[in-house]
Amino acid sequence: MKVGILGGGQLARMLTLAAQPLGISTYCLDPNPNVSASYVTNIFIADYQDEDKLKQWLQQCDVITYENENIPVATAKLIHQFKPLYPSIKALEISQDRLYEKNLFRSLKINTPHFMPVNSFKELKEACAVIQLPAILKTRRFGYDGKGQYLIKQNSDVELAWEALGNQSILILEQFIHFERELSLVAARNLEGATCFYPLTENQHKKGILRVSTAPYQDVQLQQQAEEYAQKIFEQLDYVGVLAIEFFQLGKQLLANEMAPRVHNSGHWTIEGAQTSQFENHIRAICGLPLGATQARRYNIMFNCIGEEPEFKQLLAIPGAHYHSYNKQARPGRKLSHITLSSDELDFYQAGVEQLKNLLK
Amino acid sequence: MKVGILGGGQLARMLTLAAQPLGISTYCLDPNPNVSASYVTNIFIADYQDEDKLKQWLQQCDVITYENENIPVATAKLIHQFKPLYPSIKALEISQDRLYEKNLFRSLKINTPHFMPVNSFKELKEACAVIQLPAILKTRRFGYDGKGQYLIKQNSDVELAWEALGNQSILILEQFIHFERELSLVAARNLEGATCFYPLTENQHKKGILRVSTAPYQDVQLQQQAEEYAQKIFEQLDYVGVLAIEFFQLGKQLLANEMAPRVHNSGHWTIEGAQTSQFENHIRAICGLPLGATQARRYNIMFNCIGEEPEFKQLLAIPGAHYHSYNKQARPGRKLSHITLSSDELDFYQAGVEQLKNLLK
Repeated sequence: MKVGILGGGQLARMLTLAAQPLGISTYCLDPNPNVSASYVTNIFIADYQDEDKLKQWLQQCDVITYENENIPVATAKLIHQFKPLYPSIKALEISQDRLYEKNLFRSLKINTPHFMPVNSFKELKEACAVIQLPAILKTRRFGYDGKGQYLIKQNSDVELAWEALGNQSILILEQFIHFERELSLVAARNLEGATCFYPLTENQHKKGILRVSTAPYQDVQLQQQAEEYAQKIFEQLDYVGVLAIEFFQLGKQLLANEMAPRVHNSGHWTIEGAQTSQFENHIRAICGLPLGATQARRYNIMFNCIGEEPEFKQLLAIPGAHYHSYNKQARPGRKLSHITLSSDELDFYQAGVEQLKNLLK
Repeated sequence: MKVGILGGGQLARMLTLAAQPLGISTYCLDPNPNVSASYVTNIFIADYQDEDKLKQWLQQCDVITYENENIPVATAKLIHQFKPLYPSIKALEISQDRLYEKNLFRSLKINTPHFMPVNSFKELKEACAVIQLPAILKTRRFGYDGKGQYLIKQNSDVELAWEALGNQSILILEQFIHFERELSLVAARNLEGATCFYPLTENQHKKGILRVSTAPYQDVQLQQQAEEYAQKIFEQLDYVGVLAIEFFQLGKQLLANEMAPRVHNSGHWTIEGAQTSQFENHIRAICGLPLGATQARRYNIMFNCIGEEPEFKQLLAIPGAHYHSYNKQARPGRKLSHITLSSDELDFYQAGVEQLKNLLK
């Protein structure tokens, strides 16, 4: 069986590494030949809009998925005429637009911060009055890692926010939540409708980029709430594959911030930390296979290496440290690799985390 | 960094999959293009004796290892002129010949069954008288998976044994041990001389082929004895890489049966069951990196799929079952894949093992 992946970044790379032990191969389509996945599988070099090449590539694949929700919907629709594509086009379309996402949450009675679409400076001022400050102005499309966002703390920021983002694209204003922590849920649903859920993960962002994830975040009530939300989205979107939902936690309440129709950075710890990784479960889900167990080790942490990496030998000398290279050239702000540490022994875990934190300072 | 591997079978495949997350790539040399590793990395197609091609291949590799101890020593010696080769040529030479192996054990005061070289029918009869029956006549070279062996139970078998093996090659007669169980130790030593040891594994063979391994086999005294033996071999052979030693257990005593200068089938459970797999530790060892932690989960089992495989979906439906395809065509007696189950929870483990045993019946 051959899985076609739209995109050849680190997520495609880790999907490939999870597929190979199952005897399943991958074939990534990417305009760039030197992407992260190119070190572990074959890349079909083509633009996402090149219909002829897309068709050539499709002939060699059994099922198609994507590692990035910013691929054109037209591409997904073309593919869907020839080969199964998961997650669904509906899921892709919705996750490309923050307004659609928030509307989906609202329609499914999934708690989410207040929001209003903004298409003009006048609408922005009106929305600020309704939602109240502080609030965040965001581009509806193509935002990632904190890009395309402007925090409006006070009235004098409104014009600055509009100057920063108003000319760029359609926008959304969202209530700013003084959350206690950011949590995410990674879940999967397979072709037969079976589902599985990983434990909640706590995420720390800096400058909009995920830096550290720890799991499990143990709270039976919140876990149940998150799983119910995921289940609603699964059913609404006829979803197949891994889904990630990012939440703000406020006391005993979860507020859905955004979703990603793919394997997610906050689930990378599952490679070492869970019985079955999110990558293997995505492959299982879209290939019509049963999902794997999601039990987790007691203590798990993941650090993203952004822009720079620790010295390799020093890193590997830390007992329990696992390094995941993306084979990328270093560039400021770029995710180059991640490091995980998973254990059931608190002492072993704490000693490793302390050494890692010192090294990553 | 690029690791050249002599051979492209399943061991090279799993070494590749362990190297890739570290950002290390592999390049296998094999006469056959359609080997197991060809599904996950590049194969340089050449005979082991083709000097010109070997040199071409070597130019593209930084360090060389082998997945099979039956590669010609002349090839290893040629390689060694151009690139570092691990484990050492001495280790390769010794492990190719049961007599050399047994002499090494004896010289290092490592307990081993009585043995005598046999080069003629006369010597065989003499050896039977000294060692006493039952005893096993074995070819000294190129034996694997129980091939090239003849069990001599009584005097009337001696001539039959000679007829079966006498014309083939140089031989060794070994005392037959009524062992309690077969245990193996997988250990690693890196370029700086640091070592690590996995817990003892219990192995069940059928028709000379490993069927099931379980780990850890917990016995502090035997573990210590096995590690001391491995340490002696490491030092004697200036060893770098993973080493496996197979033992017969007889009460509180271990008798070394054979060694393998490579990752070993009885260590496959370490992929899911240990902090760092034997494959990653072999790569770390030969690449001049620190070794990874070897702590194991509490319950681990590995089943070899030989000649046939269970139905894929049924297998993956068993909670905790991990499938490792070798992408091989089925053939009687051929190792096609292995399945592991690792957990710290006895109930989860036992339930999975029971289902697996039913499926593999």
